[in-house]
This record gives sequence, C-alpha cells and structure tokens, in this order.
Amino acid sequence: MNNEDLAVTLAAKLSRAIEQQQFEQAINEVQALRPIDIADVLALIEPKFAWQILEVLPNRSTIFAYLDADIQVAMALEFPRASLAKIVGEMPSDERTDLYKHLNQEQRDALLPALAQAKREDIRRLSAYEERTAGALMTSDYATLAAQMTVAEALDALRLEAPDAETIYHAYVIDGARKLLGVVSLRVLILASPEQLINDIMVRSVISCDVNDDQEDVAKAVARYDLIALPITDASGALVGIVTHDDAMDVASDEATDDFHKSGGVSTMVGKLKDVSIRMLYRKRVFWLVFLVFGNLLSGLSISNFEDVIAANLVLVFFLPLLVDSGGNAGSQSATLMVRALATGDVVMRDWFSLLGREALVALMLGATMAVAIALIGYVRGDAVVSLVLALSMMSVVMIGCVIGMSLPFVLNKLGFDPATASAPLITSVCDASGVLIYLFIASKFLAI
Amino acid sequence: MNNEDLAVTLAAKLSRAIEQQQFEQAINEVQALRPIDIADVLALIEPKFAWQILEVLPNRSTIFAYLDADIQVAMALEFPRASLAKIVGEMPSDERTDLYKHLNQEQRDALLPALAQAKREDIRRLSAYEERTAGALMTSDYATLAAQMTVAEALDALRLEAPDAETIYHAYVIDGARKLLGVVSLRVLILASPEQLINDIMVRSVISCDVNDDQEDVAKAVARYDLIALPITDASGALVGIVTHDDAMDVASDEATDDFHKSGGVSTMVGKLKDVSIRMLYRKRVFWLVFLVFGNLLSGLSISNFEDVIAANLVLVFFLPLLVDSGGNAGSQSATLMVRALATGDVVMRDWFSLLGREALVALMLGATMAVAIALIGYVRGDAVVSLVLALSMMSVVMIGCVIGMSLPFVLNKLGFDPATASAPLITSVCDASGVLIYLFIASKFLAI
Repeated sequence: MNNEDLAVTLAAKLSRAIEQQQFEQAINEVQALRPIDIADVLALIEPKFAWQILEVLPNRSTIFAYLDADIQVAMALEFPRASLAKIVGEMPSDERTDLYKHLNQEQRDALLPALAQAKREDIRRLSAYEERTAGALMTSDYATLAAQMTVAEALDALRLEAPDAETIYHAYVIDGARKLLGVVSLRVLILASPEQLINDIMVRSVISCDVNDDQEDVAKAVARYDLIALPITDASGALVGIVTHDDAMDVASDEATDDFHKSGGVSTMVGKLKDVSIRMLYRKRVFWLVFLVFGNLLSGLSISNFEDVIAANLVLVFFLPLLVDSGGNAGSQSATLMVRALATGDVVMRDWFSLLGREALVALMLGATMAVAIALIGYVRGDAVVSLVLALSMMSVVMIGCVIGMSLPFVLNKLGFDPATASAPLITSVCDASGVLIYLFIASKFLAI
Repeated sequence: MNNEDLAVTLAAKLSRAIEQQQFEQAINEVQALRPIDIADVLALIEPKFAWQILEVLPNRSTIFAYLDADIQVAMALEFPRASLAKIVGEMPSDERTDLYKHLNQEQRDALLPALAQAKREDIRRLSAYEERTAGALMTSDYATLAAQMTVAEALDALRLEAPDAETIYHAYVIDGARKLLGVVSLRVLILASPEQLINDIMVRSVISCDVNDDQEDVAKAVARYDLIALPITDASGALVGIVTHDDAMDVASDEATDDFHKSGGVSTMVGKLKDVSIRMLYRKRVFWLVFLVFGNLLSGLSISNFEDVIAANLVLVFFLPLLVDSGGNAGSQSATLMVRALATGDVVMRDWFSLLGREALVALMLGATMAVAIALIGYVRGDAVVSLVLALSMMSVVMIGCVIGMSLPFVLNKLGFDPATASAPLITSVCDASGVLIYLFIASKFLAI
C-alpha cells in the first residue's frame, strides 16, 4: 500500500471515529505517524474535524506546515484566533510566511495582532521578497555564533537555539552587523576541544547566495556543494536567512517539473495537477496551441506552392505525414537533450559549436538509417524515382530537424528566454514547415508535374 | 563568471605553471577552492599533472571522488600503486565502489591486494548490488550506537566515528545482529543529559528502505521525510548502509533527466551529453525514430483510402499538417502533464477516471478555441463547407489527442512500462494517424468526390 492509499484508508477510519464522537480513538490512529503522513490524512477530512485532531497533537505546527496552502487557509478559518496565533507562531518562518501570503486581508488583520512583535516583523520582512528568489525560499530560523566564543560556549548557545533553528548542524558566525564571517559544523564542534575559539576552527570561505538570486541557483549551489543548508546574504553581506537541503530538493523538483511542462508546450503552472482548476489548465495550454496553429499555416503555404506536383503525384501525400513527422521527431530528441543539459549545467553556451558538429554527425547516421527504411517502402508503393525522392528528403529533413532542435534552445537562451521554451510542439511545428518545403521542393525537381 | 569558466581559466593557469615547473604556484592557485571546484579544474588538465597536484592536497580523496569515472581511471593509471591504494582507501565507500566498477580486470587485480582487508570486503559487497538499487547507491560509512549506551558514551563513540562516517548527524541504533532498532539525531544527543540512555531517547519508527528498492523510491523517501540520511536494511532487517541527502538529490536529478529524455523519445542514457559517444547517441535515438516511421505509415494508409476526396479537394492537403499537428500538440501537453505528475507522485493510477473527465472538459475548451481559429482561415482559403469540415475536424482531433495523451501514460504504467515512454514523438505519431483518419473521414462526408 502506498502513502496515498494509506492516507485514504486512515482518513475514512478517522471520519467514522469522529462521527461516533470517539476523538481519542481517532487521535490514537494517527499520532504514531510522521508529521507529513498525518498531514496527508488530515487533508482528506473536514477542516473542522481536522483542526480538532490537530489541536491536541504535540507536533501540530510541523504537521500544519506540511498541509497545502489552500487547506491551511480552510483550517485556519476554524481555529479560535488565539490557537491560530499559537500554531502559526510555532511554524517554521518560511512556512509561516507562505501561509500569510495565502491569507486575505481580513484574515491577515486577524492574525497579525495575535503574533509576537518579532514574528510580525519576520513575516513582513520575508513576505517582501519576490517569488522564486532566495529570499522567498529562505527561513530566518538559523543558528548563529560569535567568532570570539569558545567551543564550549558555542555548544551551549546551540543548545539554546536548537528548539527554534531549522538546523544546528551548520552554525553561522556573524559580527555585530550580522556580516557573515564563517561557518562551523556541529561535527567540527564536537570534535574540537572545549576551550578552542570559533574564530580558529570556522571555515571562512562560505558558499552563499544573494537574497535576490533565482531559487534555481540556490538549489544548484546546495546540490553542487552537498550542503545541509546554504546561507543567504543581502547586498551588505549580512546574513538574512538560510535555505535547507530539503527545501532546495523541493525547488529542484519543481524546476524540473516546470521544464518538463514547457517541453510539452505547457506554460509554468503552480500546484499539483489534481488540484489545478480547469480554467488554469486551459489558460496554460491554449497559448501554444493557437500560436502553433498559425505557425503551421507556414506548412500549408509551402504546400499550396507545390499544388501542381502534388496533383500529378498523389503518392506524395501518402508519405507527407511520415516525412515531416520524422524531422519533427529527430528535432524533438535533439531539443530535449539540449534543454535538459543546459538546465543541469552539463552544457553551457560556448559548447554550442562543438556540439553542433557532433549533432550533424549523429543526424547523418540517423538520417541514413531512416532513408533506407523509407526508400524500401517508397519502392513498394511507388517506383525508383519516388524512392530516391523519399530517401533524399528523409536525409535532409532529419538533418535540418536535428540542427533546428539543438540550436533553438541556445538561440532562445541567448535571447533571454528559458531554453525549455523550445518545446516538442514548437520544434515539431518548425520542423514540419521546413520538412514540407524540402520534401516538395525535392519532389518537384525529380517528378513530372 | 560561472563555475565552468572559472575552471577553464584556472586550468590554463595551472598548465602554464606546470610547464614552467612551478608546482608550488600551481598548488597555491587551487588549494583554497572547494573540493568539487578543484576537481573541475583537475579534470581539464593532463592526468599526469593533475595527479602531481592532487597528490599533495590534504583533502585529495574527497577531490578525487568528485571526478568523473573515466577521468578517475585515466588518473589512476598515473598513480604509483601504493598511492592509488591510499587514495582509494580514503574515498567514501560508495564512490570507491563506483570507481572499482569502472576499472578493468587488470586494474582491479592491481588495486585489491593493496587495500586493507575490510575495504576489499566492502568493495566486493557493495559492487554486488544491481545498478539503480538502494544497495548500489548507499555508503557503508555510517555511525552506529548501541541502545544501552548513555548519551555521554554515544557522543564519545560518535567522536571516534566522525572521521570516517559520511554523517554523524543521524546515528543508527543497532543490536548485536545489526538489526536496526532506532535512530538518534545529534541535535537530540547534545540536548539530552549525559547520563540518559540511548534506548530512552531514540526514535523507534525509523523510515528505511530495502537494499533492493529502486533508487527512485529512495530519493522519494528522502525528499518526502526531509531526511539527512536514509538507512538501508537487508531482508533480515539488518542495517547495511545509508543514502545521504546529497546522493538522493543527485538521483532525483538523474531520474528527472531520464524522464525528460524519454519524453523526447530518447532512451535511457548514462553520462553527460558532452561526454557521450556519437555511437551511443545514435543507438539511444534510432529505435524510436525508425519505430515511428513505421507507425506513421498508418497515417499514410489512411490517406491512401481517401485519395479520391483529396484529388477532388486539394485544399485539404493545405490544412493537413496544421490539423494533425494540433492533435499531436494537444496530446503532447496532456501526456507531459500526466507523465510528470505520475513521476512526482502527485497523481496515482486510481486518479485516471476523474482526471479523464477534467481533461475532456479542458480539451473541449481548447478544441473550441482552435476550431474558431481554423474555421476563419478555412473560410478565407476555401469556402463555408471547408470551414465547417475544418472546425469539426479540429474539435475531434484535439479531443482525441488529449484523451490519447492522458491515457497512454496510464496504460503504459499498467502494462509495466515506464509512463515516460509516452514521449512527445510517440504521442504525436499516434495522434497524427488518428487525426488524418478523422479529418479525411469528415471531409469525405461533406465534400464532393
């Protein structure tokens, strides 16, 4: 049974227990589970009852933080104001800010006065950063040390900070102006002798990101340097937050989803597929579909220029979808390889020229293989001349498709677009238009009109 | 300047310094860098010189572990056997095993006798696990504790294990038979009082994976439960290794790349795009291209059944690529959304039916929009009847495309294939064949032959 089936089964049990007013039993069912698993169960039952169960669980703020924003808001409406303030106050600062952003003005006005001053400030500060930046991703619950502390003092300080900090495995050394001076890992701390100074054992060359950096760069830095957390600094070099490895992993997954969607001609979409509204789905898909309808008119225009040769050789139409699709398919392959390699950083802009040479060679081999296949079929359906036209067209179509497919992501990147915009549908349409032109041009040279 | 440009610049400096026999200067250039950054520089210079620099760096085994396997092997050939054994002995056990797998028999025979008995055993054991399983991914460098230890004893034990363990932030509690009993975080340890028993503070419900589990499931568990490391157990419940968060993040990225490639009709490919051989690229792409040539013959066969109506209405050919591509594009979008949602776990098999209803509605809206667009163009190029044929065809083609696009990943999954096999090229070809048939069938009903 997977996590989701388990959640459905448990949610049904819980709902029954609640109907029979057996709250204790309901709570017993879930309290041994992990916070995220409890969140999955609570998401499936009525917000009112979910809140009643959540209220008595010891790690309720952690569980609440795992819920989707819309469910958090629905549940928040059920909370007495004092409880809401308490649970929101206990949440990790990044999650708390996300929730705040999802509340309407009235809910915000109800929540803010109930929070402690420091938490209000924190929400105001964190919610000011633009979406998809390091600032919007980071948490302000990190552990700091001073350079002149001894190891013993540092360990005592960390013990005090532990309940609130998201991680104490990396502690950041700052000066009076919060400027980031270095980092010490807990591993180093417990190995050092108690009287050593932090200043002498800290690592000074800290990998950090700026608060305005793209969240994708943050995720890449965490992945590249195998970090548990990445410190985020502002323009003055002052430490303002950290991004933890688990949040970086979520970003990497979201960014992959985004690229994946773009590769299929779907615009950036936030939220799970099951939860996204039909209107949103329509909006995210219609642009490319209609845009490509007009793009495909180019194929039609090529065709109308060669109506004579088509009329005289209707067999050409038989092979039309096959030929143009082959170019599009080969092009989609090239674009897919290139878009992903650019996204992971395996390939950079200046590799374009050397990759083009390799791609041309691969395209030649692929084109030749496919030319043989289609020439055989062409000979059976038509004659030797048709066979020759098909083989030549296939070679050209595949070569051109590959060159377009591998170049378009680079061109888009150069023009400041996301290379993932070179989606399979776009590549297919571009390759189709050129494929039709090539095919009919070659045919018009060899076949009688 | 990005990481790679920096590496190129530094590698050039290094090569010059080495040519002038100024080794010390070369070493000074790199030694302040992070291990992975040094590895990137060393990868760009001759193995012989790279080795001479690496040899004197204090964290050489960490740096060496970051190099790609082929460069590791090339450098290994330059090492004196004793140095090779030393550096390989110091490597993390998972990286060491990966290197071992890349050596030929002669190199293995040279290496093994130079390693300590325990490391030899470790390599033999780890290299026996199938690729892409938890066993092939895990490291055996983890920290263990006994349940009857006090916190003070546990901290002492961790201090001893720290130099070898990949992480001491999670320590695993095992019994005499290495059965996994619980987990203790270093955070909990430093907060506990020294005389408390591990048995009383450990978490007993440990999230773990089986050694034969798919590496994708391991990465998903690490992501879901925000773990720093995930313990791996064998069939008897004995702890045999751990997978750390950074390795899990790499797996998630590799799996996303794999799905991405499949979505573009490229088979599973190992290695960076720049490094993959041309022959490999050809092999990974030719199957789908040739397979789809034969698939597209179906489109051709539909066409040959309707040659009369085409011959009488050549304007139909003008709209042929546009119409069939639209179906393919809409289908690619649906498939992309579905494949990624299945991969991330946002959608499970039993969601198919409810998603189909939503998809049909979205398809209806998309189809209607596009029908209006094409009807206008059709009216300009043809007449009212052509316009009607086009609008009806577009509606049908988009609807069918979406249903195929969203269902095929589910069907493939049900049949035991990776849903990502429902690539854009495959969907396009299937949708094209049905699109041609629908279009020409509708045309034959409305237009004169």
